[in-house]
Amino acid sequence: MKNFARENIACMDGYVPGEQPKGQTFVKLNTNENPYPPAPTVGQALQNFLWEDLRLYSEPSAYAVRQAASAEFGFHQDEIICGNGSDDLLTIAVRTFVNQGEAMAYCEPSYSLYPVLADLQGALHRRVQLDDDFQVPEDAAEQARGAKLLLLARPNAPTGTNTARARLEKLCQEFSGVVWIDEAYADFSDDNCLDFVSRYENVVVSRTFSKSYSLAGLRLGLAFAQRELLFEMNKVKDSYNVDALTQCLGAAALQASGYMRANAARVKATREWLNVQLQQLGCEVLPSQANFVFVKPPRPAPKVFAALRQGGFLVRYFNLPRISDYMRISIGRQEDMEAFVCCLKEILS
Amino acid sequence: MKNFARENIACMDGYVPGEQPKGQTFVKLNTNENPYPPAPTVGQALQNFLWEDLRLYSEPSAYAVRQAASAEFGFHQDEIICGNGSDDLLTIAVRTFVNQGEAMAYCEPSYSLYPVLADLQGALHRRVQLDDDFQVPEDAAEQARGAKLLLLARPNAPTGTNTARARLEKLCQEFSGVVWIDEAYADFSDDNCLDFVSRYENVVVSRTFSKSYSLAGLRLGLAFAQRELLFEMNKVKDSYNVDALTQCLGAAALQASGYMRANAARVKATREWLNVQLQQLGCEVLPSQANFVFVKPPRPAPKVFAALRQGGFLVRYFNLPRISDYMRISIGRQEDMEAFVCCLKEILS
Repeated sequence: MKNFARENIACMDGYVPGEQPKGQTFVKLNTNENPYPPAPTVGQALQNFLWEDLRLYSEPSAYAVRQAASAEFGFHQDEIICGNGSDDLLTIAVRTFVNQGEAMAYCEPSYSLYPVLADLQGALHRRVQLDDDFQVPEDAAEQARGAKLLLLARPNAPTGTNTARARLEKLCQEFSGVVWIDEAYADFSDDNCLDFVSRYENVVVSRTFSKSYSLAGLRLGLAFAQRELLFEMNKVKDSYNVDALTQCLGAAALQASGYMRANAARVKATREWLNVQLQQLGCEVLPSQANFVFVKPPRPAPKVFAALRQGGFLVRYFNLPRISDYMRISIGRQEDMEAFVCCLKEILS
Repeated sequence: MKNFARENIACMDGYVPGEQPKGQTFVKLNTNENPYPPAPTVGQALQNFLWEDLRLYSEPSAYAVRQAASAEFGFHQDEIICGNGSDDLLTIAVRTFVNQGEAMAYCEPSYSLYPVLADLQGALHRRVQLDDDFQVPEDAAEQARGAKLLLLARPNAPTGTNTARARLEKLCQEFSGVVWIDEAYADFSDDNCLDFVSRYENVVVSRTFSKSYSLAGLRLGLAFAQRELLFEMNKVKDSYNVDALTQCLGAAALQASGYMRANAARVKATREWLNVQLQQLGCEVLPSQANFVFVKPPRPAPKVFAALRQGGFLVRYFNLPRISDYMRISIGRQEDMEAFVCCLKEILS
């Protein structure tokens, strides 16, 4: 049969998301979901939603979400764009800023979607290697030179590490293209880079509702940037990319950010507790500012991963350069992590 | 300020969706929404949805929807792909099959998103002019020659006209690229082209939940094609492009297709009634197989459009070649259309 696809599509594998197990019950620590439910007001908003109104198109700009985000984050509504998850916003960015055949830069190791997005666009890959501490390197602008867009995550996935703000700010000044700071995990971090947006015309900061807001299944992301950048990105986004239910529930979640922060604090407390436990079991643990830890166990990671799965705990293993000795463990409820530590102790004994 | 966007993006206008009015109450006949609500079982599914589960990612392939669609349409689940609205699927198609700088073909006049999609991809436009009866022309394959993808709508928007199946089937045989038959309005039509899918490896047929299923605000579309085509398109789609609520409600809607068909029958009855009324008022009405009529009034269309708006009726006017004398009128409830005819009568008297 003839293959009708573009060559860059035909010869690629596609992104593989973390396993969503069916049937067997796992403690799911593999896709950085929040172990706690979203705010009860989100549930109330769902109950109160007038389902008959679904016959009408949703508001194209997701105005209700942008309005709530404006109140929460202090940006003007015109400095906010909403996506069908922050993955949608990343796709929009690549399509807005990078021609086929031009270079797109991204840090490595980082979110494994970034190289896939470059392949989908038919862009050249400009890989910026994180340094030995998994920080964005001092010479990142040099490594990324000529690329139209540089994607990086802070906190970084899957390592959980934060590059110092000052180093990133210098990068924003030095790099001639658009710098996308993916802050999917920022609510679990001590600081963030949102203030860069008003100072740099080439900076976008994105957030997601999938982690701290406990709404991975809702698909909602935000990006903050100056109006001129968003003016172009808005041309590329699907007109009705955020559905009416998502707009309603997303706005409710933003209005209950205090609830989200209390959940995030619980996750962070468990993270610090887990960190100590893992080190006592002989694991090397990278300093994490996210809702997961990146861990080098004292035995081969693929074997520990498989044994954990056998024991009912699903974590994430990446067979990729530099990180093939590590496992990424999402932070679950305290009681789940206590059971996890017992299981791991048994495996390592 | 520097413009960071690709040139094809910077110099384009972007798609302009039909107006979603705020404040003033209009009878909304401008975006082909269904005047009747979705099936009550959709409302029940919403009420029964466990909102706490939104903390988990949605199933990447929208399996529940594909399973329900398989039962409804008789295709295997692997011959079905789900999109965040059928617009999402159209975008996926362009990105799968058309390199930047290659040609993309589309019929004209048709859905005004098609040329926007070509611009977004940086593709060359191959415009296939519909014939005098707004049918896909006999020599469409010739006009589209060399393009990687040909987008056409049946029934066509905004004209409502159906090209004969035999003519389209010949086109599928003659055209060397992918033929995308956009059947957004097929549930209001006497026939459709779904059976082409099993016979032609280069054919995709898409459907939407926005019209007949009364779920424009939910954002859900389907496309049917042979597995090899969908294998490539699945690489391009966002991993979690259909959220958990949409999957649940979409599956419920498909399981209540009888309810949808009863609504569609009501819309068609009103369409035929309206057709007669409009002709009696001196309008030229194209034969419609959709949930709208395309009408040339006996006075200048922009003026009639403005007067209708003044009278509280929002219809759609396109200031585009060949159709600038027409208005597109979505079919509302019978009582709304009776009021509409009264208003139009006044305007034309």
